[in-house]
Amino acid sequence: MKNAKFRLETCLSPAIYPKHADDGNIVVVVDILRATSAICTAFHNGVKRIIPVSTVEEARKKKEEGYIVASERDGYVLDFADFGNSPFNFTAEKVRGKEIVYSTTNGTRCIHMASHSKEVVIGSFLNLTSLSEWLIRQDAPVLIFCASWKDRFSLEDTIFAGALAEKLLDSGKFETICDAVTASLDLWTLAKPNLNEYVLKAAQKGRLAEKGLDDCIEFCHRADFTSVIPIYRDGELIPVS
Amino acid sequence: MKNAKFRLETCLSPAIYPKHADDGNIVVVVDILRATSAICTAFHNGVKRIIPVSTVEEARKKKEEGYIVASERDGYVLDFADFGNSPFNFTAEKVRGKEIVYSTTNGTRCIHMASHSKEVVIGSFLNLTSLSEWLIRQDAPVLIFCASWKDRFSLEDTIFAGALAEKLLDSGKFETICDAVTASLDLWTLAKPNLNEYVLKAAQKGRLAEKGLDDCIEFCHRADFTSVIPIYRDGELIPVS
Repeated sequence: MKNAKFRLETCLSPAIYPKHADDGNIVVVVDILRATSAICTAFHNGVKRIIPVSTVEEARKKKEEGYIVASERDGYVLDFADFGNSPFNFTAEKVRGKEIVYSTTNGTRCIHMASHSKEVVIGSFLNLTSLSEWLIRQDAPVLIFCASWKDRFSLEDTIFAGALAEKLLDSGKFETICDAVTASLDLWTLAKPNLNEYVLKAAQKGRLAEKGLDDCIEFCHRADFTSVIPIYRDGELIPVS
Repeated sequence: MKNAKFRLETCLSPAIYPKHADDGNIVVVVDILRATSAICTAFHNGVKRIIPVSTVEEARKKKEEGYIVASERDGYVLDFADFGNSPFNFTAEKVRGKEIVYSTTNGTRCIHMASHSKEVVIGSFLNLTSLSEWLIRQDAPVLIFCASWKDRFSLEDTIFAGALAEKLLDSGKFETICDAVTASLDLWTLAKPNLNEYVLKAAQKGRLAEKGLDDCIEFCHRADFTSVIPIYRDGELIPVS
């Protein structure tokens, strides 16, 4: 007898999340520029755990409690923070063995929204293959959750959703009737031959470039830089063991 | 001096609409399968005006007031209604010179959500070229508003958004930094060479086929069947004169 396949869906904006929510889902939170890329980089460089917080106030409070804090708004490192939100800040020298607080509005909100689910994991191009292999081993439906930008559709998150969906569907273990998966696969197929050039089309690029934050775009689209899989447990991100 | 260009955006789900709302917008409401295709067909066949209503209760009340009512739920014509929601029901014989009530949950909701805007017009493949030409003459920013299905992303509405965006951007009168426009253009470019086959991929097709409602899919993707442009005024749709 053929094994039943698991459902694969993609949610293109936090505003649509309630339509996809299911306690049985494994949810992959995606915020390519820059939260989930930075989180994967930090675990690759040996961070012990990351506490995601939504607001500057929470980040400040955590700093007062003695945590190392990554926090910026509109591209500027906040005065009380140790460094900003770029993946390049999470060097082994700064993070190995440490507990870090990471302040990210969209990413944290998505993690909290999905926290009722079976599991919440962090996805980026940086851990694409190891994440897909782990998901294929889990025997559960998967929802790829694009954090997007201010609830709007985000091209780079959707392209990643297509890259991950391709691996999951190719495994034969998943099936989908979700239009967002179909669209993301087609956009990924278009983008794949020249990913960096394609992503430059994204509005996010314009926004980041204006603020001089576009230095990490190429890095954030580099596949399989690491094999870590950050997972959310009791308010903290830790590496899947 | 070069003329300033007008903003073009696409909203992929009613759940995201608040992020795109702007009183100065001309909003194009899109629900390819089937509301906006049916509305364009009705005006092509000479309907005088269409009153869009959201609920079965409103439709029933309008029937009691003497209106001709198109109303169905889950593919079944409601017992009090004159006919169902397929474009094929809006024949000249049935609708010419008449006032019709059209019951559609998604479409009506989007029209009402956008009613604060400068104008609300109805878009479908059936009136693609005439609508684009009218929009180019208006000197206002345009928001293409995909009604989608239960707030989820809808492939056929997005493909249409790409077809319309292509015409608007080609005119040189619009510009965009909206990722949803970029994605819709790329999906339209992929779909265009064989539109019907592409659209069969849409989950909507699966849903409609299950209910035997897939007879109008090909018709709903036929470009320029008509030159009518339905516009929303005082709670009713009338043709642009």
